[in-house]
Amino acid sequence: MDQKENIMNYETVALDDQDHSIVIIDQTLLPGRTELIRLRTAQEIWNAIYLLQVRGAPAIGVTAAFGIYLLARQIQMENIDNAGSDFGAFYRQLTQQREYLNSSRPTAVNLSWALNRMDALCRKAGEEEKRSVAEIVELLHQEAAQIKEEDIRVCRAIGENGLTLVKPGDGILTHCNAGQLATCKYGTATAPIYLGEERGYHFHVFADETRPLLQGARLTAYELHSAGVDVTLICDNMSATVMKKGWVNAVFVGCDRVAANGDAANKIGTSVVATVAKRYGIPFYVCAPTSTIDFDTPTGEGINIEQRPAEEVTEMWYKERMAPEGVKVFNPAFDVTDHDLITGIVTEYGIARAPFTESLAQIRRKKEAASV
Amino acid sequence: MDQKENIMNYETVALDDQDHSIVIIDQTLLPGRTELIRLRTAQEIWNAIYLLQVRGAPAIGVTAAFGIYLLARQIQMENIDNAGSDFGAFYRQLTQQREYLNSSRPTAVNLSWALNRMDALCRKAGEEEKRSVAEIVELLHQEAAQIKEEDIRVCRAIGENGLTLVKPGDGILTHCNAGQLATCKYGTATAPIYLGEERGYHFHVFADETRPLLQGARLTAYELHSAGVDVTLICDNMSATVMKKGWVNAVFVGCDRVAANGDAANKIGTSVVATVAKRYGIPFYVCAPTSTIDFDTPTGEGINIEQRPAEEVTEMWYKERMAPEGVKVFNPAFDVTDHDLITGIVTEYGIARAPFTESLAQIRRKKEAASV
Repeated sequence: MDQKENIMNYETVALDDQDHSIVIIDQTLLPGRTELIRLRTAQEIWNAIYLLQVRGAPAIGVTAAFGIYLLARQIQMENIDNAGSDFGAFYRQLTQQREYLNSSRPTAVNLSWALNRMDALCRKAGEEEKRSVAEIVELLHQEAAQIKEEDIRVCRAIGENGLTLVKPGDGILTHCNAGQLATCKYGTATAPIYLGEERGYHFHVFADETRPLLQGARLTAYELHSAGVDVTLICDNMSATVMKKGWVNAVFVGCDRVAANGDAANKIGTSVVATVAKRYGIPFYVCAPTSTIDFDTPTGEGINIEQRPAEEVTEMWYKERMAPEGVKVFNPAFDVTDHDLITGIVTEYGIARAPFTESLAQIRRKKEAASV
Repeated sequence: MDQKENIMNYETVALDDQDHSIVIIDQTLLPGRTELIRLRTAQEIWNAIYLLQVRGAPAIGVTAAFGIYLLARQIQMENIDNAGSDFGAFYRQLTQQREYLNSSRPTAVNLSWALNRMDALCRKAGEEEKRSVAEIVELLHQEAAQIKEEDIRVCRAIGENGLTLVKPGDGILTHCNAGQLATCKYGTATAPIYLGEERGYHFHVFADETRPLLQGARLTAYELHSAGVDVTLICDNMSATVMKKGWVNAVFVGCDRVAANGDAANKIGTSVVATVAKRYGIPFYVCAPTSTIDFDTPTGEGINIEQRPAEEVTEMWYKERMAPEGVKVFNPAFDVTDHDLITGIVTEYGIARAPFTESLAQIRRKKEAASV
């Protein structure tokens, strides 16, 4: 593999301060082509998120934050209605752009979270602190960079904590893509793998292809392979075989939402992996930034599972339709892994273990203490 | 769905006695098109087996047996070297054809088993009983029909036995295609479903798509849907979701080989389904003609698992390559389900339950007693 294609040489989302553009890897071209694209206008940013050229909740949030900074800078420079010096005009124009970006993927929590955070800073600096538009633009610049830094720090901390659970040469199985491509760097489930690789741990990774959308084959196998990690692609239904052979020492997966009792929603099939891992006595770890722990949802039963179109299963990737016309299809995007199947939940503030209701609450207190 | 496309109106393999041809459903066109093709020459029969236009061990065996009869008839009619009346010439020419057919898929046990059975009959009638070539051709006709009848009878008996394990309205999950398309009629795992359908049981069937070769999506969903069975296609990694919801009352799968202790080799992913079924307390049944029980193999560890090409996982069905070039792929075609995960093994002579070493031996005695 060409060294310049090693994904670890890139960031999933980067700000080019000379060129005033956002640089992303166009994920819709993976794994066929590794191509960087530059986003400058509101429409380009909106499209990139809408078309999944950038995906993964943390990566989307950072893209949106950088976008707000770049658009604020443009509004300042263009100076329409005196927006370069009049905060009222500046804020009106920026709000329009923010609302536009927020419409690109309305269900991604990190998108609105990042946009709201940029907005709060903007209002505080303009309305309370009466700062100049130029100063506000620079504050937005710093805030966006901060959001990105936090994402990298959280992923790295998850990686450090996860790394304590495995040893050099271990086999690790992962499902879907909770990788660098879903975050700014390291990923969540892949963070222990990348950090281990930096330290010569030489893990043997098994990547589930993850039907129906094949994020494991298209993205996880791609990014690990490009980074020089020893990765083997398997179909989802082969997990029992590699586990029974003794090739897997630990499972690391990401998650979309963790309930207060430790039940964890993640990509469809995750609970199957967890069930099989339990049979073969293999520890199963959920890697979760504390932002995904939802203390208002007591158990996994309260997590709503998105149903997606049948075509993803029957024809989306195929040369021709692979199932009979008119057949019923059930296509849930996620499943919930019951907490009794989970060995540990790896967060940036440590590893929660059963009983999770207590251990997750403890993680929460640790986080609150740290942010004081 | 057009009534004429109902697969239950066809047989997977049929002999047309007026036209002197074998009629099969071309399975390579499924699920897109239901097309019957006629096989007359040795090369047409060889191609149909080689190209998987007909597949499934029992269906291949019957096709080969019909083929031997048709080719014997042609040799008789053509009368080259007096083969219409001279047994020596007839047998030499038929042996050539038999060896040619046997080379179409050397690993399918039923192919050589059926060809050997036809050969034994031929030699007995010609050498021992000194019958005329015309008589021998008619005996081969009857033997081939007999092989087919036996296949249908075995499948039907498995269906009757399996049907005692479920009740009207039940949800049934199956993996891969152990269906009518793999046999002459009814299939093995699908036999209880078809018989139940005839009796108004109205099962709700879930068909795993069965990566990488998608036999569940392409063949099982097709044949059940065409027969009017309520079938829902799912990806393999969705089994836990439908089981957790309480939608599945029993799992029926086929098998390729059963060891003496009940360990059962079947399509990759079967043991994953069994593991998940066990977690949710759902009975897991293996449907096995006694011909697949291998008493010479004590446990599943003695069953050799075929590895298949990486391309099946990374590109075979896809519009474009779905995994990075050069990534390692592990692609076992089968897995072994440990006997402790199996609730029962459904044969044509009854249902074996744990301890299987005893119950399978009992089935064997029953079969031996019946064939005396």
